[in-house]
Amino acid sequence: MNPPLHDPDAARTALQGVVEADLDNDQVADRHARGVWSGICEPGDGDAGLLVAAVGAAGALRLVAADDAPAVAAAAAIDRDRAREALERWRPRLASGPSAAGFDTARRVGVRLIVPGDATWPTRVDDLGPHGPLCLWVRGRLPEHPVPTVAIVGARAATSYGEHVAMELSAELAATGVRIVSGAAYGIDGAAHRAALNAGGLTDALLAGGVDRPYPAGHEDLLGRITRTGAVISEVPCGAAPTKWRFLSRNRIIAAISDATVVVEAGWRSGSLNTAAHAASLGRPLGAVPGPVTSPASAGCHRMLRDFDARCITRSADVRELLGLDDDLLPGADGWVDEATALRDALSTRSWRTVDDVARRCGQSIAHVERGLGLLLLDGRAQHGPAGWRLIVTRR
Amino acid sequence: MNPPLHDPDAARTALQGVVEADLDNDQVADRHARGVWSGICEPGDGDAGLLVAAVGAAGALRLVAADDAPAVAAAAAIDRDRAREALERWRPRLASGPSAAGFDTARRVGVRLIVPGDATWPTRVDDLGPHGPLCLWVRGRLPEHPVPTVAIVGARAATSYGEHVAMELSAELAATGVRIVSGAAYGIDGAAHRAALNAGGLTDALLAGGVDRPYPAGHEDLLGRITRTGAVISEVPCGAAPTKWRFLSRNRIIAAISDATVVVEAGWRSGSLNTAAHAASLGRPLGAVPGPVTSPASAGCHRMLRDFDARCITRSADVRELLGLDDDLLPGADGWVDEATALRDALSTRSWRTVDDVARRCGQSIAHVERGLGLLLLDGRAQHGPAGWRLIVTRR
Repeated sequence: MNPPLHDPDAARTALQGVVEADLDNDQVADRHARGVWSGICEPGDGDAGLLVAAVGAAGALRLVAADDAPAVAAAAAIDRDRAREALERWRPRLASGPSAAGFDTARRVGVRLIVPGDATWPTRVDDLGPHGPLCLWVRGRLPEHPVPTVAIVGARAATSYGEHVAMELSAELAATGVRIVSGAAYGIDGAAHRAALNAGGLTDALLAGGVDRPYPAGHEDLLGRITRTGAVISEVPCGAAPTKWRFLSRNRIIAAISDATVVVEAGWRSGSLNTAAHAASLGRPLGAVPGPVTSPASAGCHRMLRDFDARCITRSADVRELLGLDDDLLPGADGWVDEATALRDALSTRSWRTVDDVARRCGQSIAHVERGLGLLLLDGRAQHGPAGWRLIVTRR
Repeated sequence: MNPPLHDPDAARTALQGVVEADLDNDQVADRHARGVWSGICEPGDGDAGLLVAAVGAAGALRLVAADDAPAVAAAAAIDRDRAREALERWRPRLASGPSAAGFDTARRVGVRLIVPGDATWPTRVDDLGPHGPLCLWVRGRLPEHPVPTVAIVGARAATSYGEHVAMELSAELAATGVRIVSGAAYGIDGAAHRAALNAGGLTDALLAGGVDRPYPAGHEDLLGRITRTGAVISEVPCGAAPTKWRFLSRNRIIAAISDATVVVEAGWRSGSLNTAAHAASLGRPLGAVPGPVTSPASAGCHRMLRDFDARCITRSADVRELLGLDDDLLPGADGWVDEATALRDALSTRSWRTVDDVARRCGQSIAHVERGLGLLLLDGRAQHGPAGWRLIVTRR
């Protein structure tokens, strides 16, 4: 039994350095319980999702500790046999108590735990319903405002053609403020991350195992670079191994966290098609890059074009269309239009600019610019970072 | 004025050797008039189509000769200005009388004139309505029964990848009894024709100029080979030049004469997209072969996948699906099923077999086999040629 289950102080201690906000006791209990849940159920466990949605993470954990199958069945609205099976999945891990180690490692390597309701929680993953993540472990930082996000994924066994196209797409999109999500694998994923970083853009990597374990090992440096401006994310705690099941589950997060998914190269049975299928089932737009029909590395993409109704992607503009992005920033309908237009013109989607710099560029007072930037921020049209302000490309 | 307009005997003489059937006087007049019409209006002239549909080809020609705009307007249900303009288009050519030469050349080089109602008239082109051909000039021979037919077309400036794919598709489809239609151009068209011939299949070429003028000149041998088993076809008479307009108009016949159109490689503004657009407007299924997004020769195909809802074609089975072809021959519902099955098993879709050979293979009497083959022929499931009988792959 994990001691913090009955001990608010121990829970608060476990969370020290792992969460950012000041929390009341209920928040501590919920957050800590979600962290524990991420270690006792496998990703996408719908029974856990139903139970937590019904009685909260801490309450759900108490029912597991009490081995109370009837109460679990009643709360999750599942039958008793299924509740019993679920308890049999969860209790061994609760008893062995790996979660304390997970929190300790997270604190040590600078991993944050985020939960629904947090400013940086990617609300798009909630579309997964009871199969969504109960929490996310994050190295680096997710944005506080919605940013156009695309998953660029594909085969590990990519060709130079595939890597070339992945880099082109990723660099061009990242340079215009689109966030690039991928799975940090060799091949297409790595090319997409690297090109986004090299273009000065933002990219996030979803891992199947704990974010303290760089996987694949050869991408340790790449993952480190990603955390400096973007995020390396997992729904399993530090120390958890990247199992086959977790790879498949991880794919649903890649699909859910992104506005659209683009597969650059994929064999006939590639795991990327699994990501694409998740995106399709969530109603997210799907794109596939064609290639030579003689190339097995493109067979999965052609299958998507034929059978999944994927959009044919040949250049970054096709992806922007998929994302519903409008390259012309439309002026608003209020009296602030002209000042705002001048302000936006003074901002860049690529480089961060200080308030002073922006004021100089648009010929407005610092006070005016600060007010204007605040409005753009509220509007989700500008982004604030350590190096200043940046324009976000808006959606139609 | 063409003398045969008022002279049935001259018309009969003009048609000698150019049509196959024994004809009565009305048939002679109609057929001859259609041949004359093919020389005085440009392909796809809807006013000519409406007028001929209303009063017949010979009657329509009389109205033109009489320069009777009110009668033309009334018959074609168009306004008088339009009728006047149409007459101004047609009368100069009727007066200069090039059609006699067209008939003479046709007779000399073995070109046949076919019209709607003929056994070998490809009824699918009638879907073009008033813009359909009034007659077709044919070197070689069209089939008497509907045969699954696919247009395989593409850029003249093809890559070796495109030519390779065109050859693969064409050879595999032709070998299983699908007729391959194309435009005899260099690049994709030529590759499709050649591969069909080399596979022992049938292929037809649609020309923009007269079929007595091999175009392009470098394909004279290829066109000659095509006429030995298939057909070289045009809607303009012998001697007519392949103008730009006629190329575009020719594309609508390629689309209409085929059950489906597949574009293998095409630049962003390739003429093949014109063929594809015609196919789409006729409701014919459309396929496009993807290629590297870095290859301009595939840009038009990718455009078709994105904007024309074309099917992604990666192998011949995809085309068979597009054609609605069922590779398993379904047994019929009558008592003749077993004999017919044995008979079909004894036939080949690739090679012609004599009645004796078929009888030996299926263990039935010659009389039985002849009766069975007759039924299959009526059914459109077998084909009869100089070298014997062959199975036609049936549609679902």
